[in-house]
Amino acid sequence: MKAASELIDRLSYDDVTIEAVARASGVSKSSLYRRWPSRRVLVLEAFTYRTNLLTHVQDTGDVGRDLHSYLVAMTHCLVEGETASTVAQLLSEAIRSSEFSRLYRKTLLREGRKGFISVLRRGQNRGQIRKDIDLSAVTDALYGAIHHRLIATGAAFDAPFLQHLHEFAIAGCATPAYLKQRSIAR
Amino acid sequence: MKAASELIDRLSYDDVTIEAVARASGVSKSSLYRRWPSRRVLVLEAFTYRTNLLTHVQDTGDVGRDLHSYLVAMTHCLVEGETASTVAQLLSEAIRSSEFSRLYRKTLLREGRKGFISVLRRGQNRGQIRKDIDLSAVTDALYGAIHHRLIATGAAFDAPFLQHLHEFAIAGCATPAYLKQRSIAR
Repeated sequence: MKAASELIDRLSYDDVTIEAVARASGVSKSSLYRRWPSRRVLVLEAFTYRTNLLTHVQDTGDVGRDLHSYLVAMTHCLVEGETASTVAQLLSEAIRSSEFSRLYRKTLLREGRKGFISVLRRGQNRGQIRKDIDLSAVTDALYGAIHHRLIATGAAFDAPFLQHLHEFAIAGCATPAYLKQRSIAR
Repeated sequence: MKAASELIDRLSYDDVTIEAVARASGVSKSSLYRRWPSRRVLVLEAFTYRTNLLTHVQDTGDVGRDLHSYLVAMTHCLVEGETASTVAQLLSEAIRSSEFSRLYRKTLLREGRKGFISVLRRGQNRGQIRKDIDLSAVTDALYGAIHHRLIATGAAFDAPFLQHLHEFAIAGCATPAYLKQRSIAR
């Protein structure tokens, strides 16, 4: 897993092969094939492993700061190294195969969504995010914006974009009290 | 185009073949192949044609109402008939081929995004949407939420989801004056 996840950082999706993982990890190809009959499942699991290591959900007590940090962590891997192609190709495989889609939803997607939802829910518990907000729909918008920029428009994940997305989301679901506190702080 | 777009409504992506379009339109297969050497390009153009017919951008003077109407129109085709598979497969093809991606961005994607941006820009011109809002990022979030629900989570495009998404977006980018007017109206 560790060897495979390091390769994902350095190589495009197509180049993360069973042979490459065997060489990097010292594990035999036959052992790898037994455990992962399909290359895309190996890449999905290795990428989920890597993402879990790198995208911690912060808890500073400020939902705006925690949401922005999580957006930066989630998109960092899309500007550094080769992982953008991996994320995109895994989505494409999920579209083409309902079996792979089921696995994708139970692993990488679930972990990514959990991060957004836990930041927002902690915000609700602190009176910073409104209780009537549908956290699932907001997560669709945030996670969806990232994938849309990656696969549809191809535009950059620069600091202004992340700032705008975060501000828009906070304005969209924060309590009046928290919004007032933020504007006083500026 | 018309024959192909009607087939898209009734058949899944895989079943909209050159043969089926030839039968439905009365145009010979060789003529079709000359014009569209690739099936996915035919489906993309027919679907763009169909979407343009069906997703008018309203201008009622109320940005909230116009945005909600556009969201309903954009997702209507994802609950009726077979078009959900077509939208998803076209995205998948765009991920897998940079040449097809370029065409996708110039046609279906551009039309879809134009709709969101024109609703929001008219809102800005009327003082209902804040002038400092990045319309491109908000469009990523709205259009992205739709695709995310379609290809990532597979959850339904029901009325509560569309209502929540629309409310979240309006709260996220409306002017204080417009928000006040909306809350008084309720």
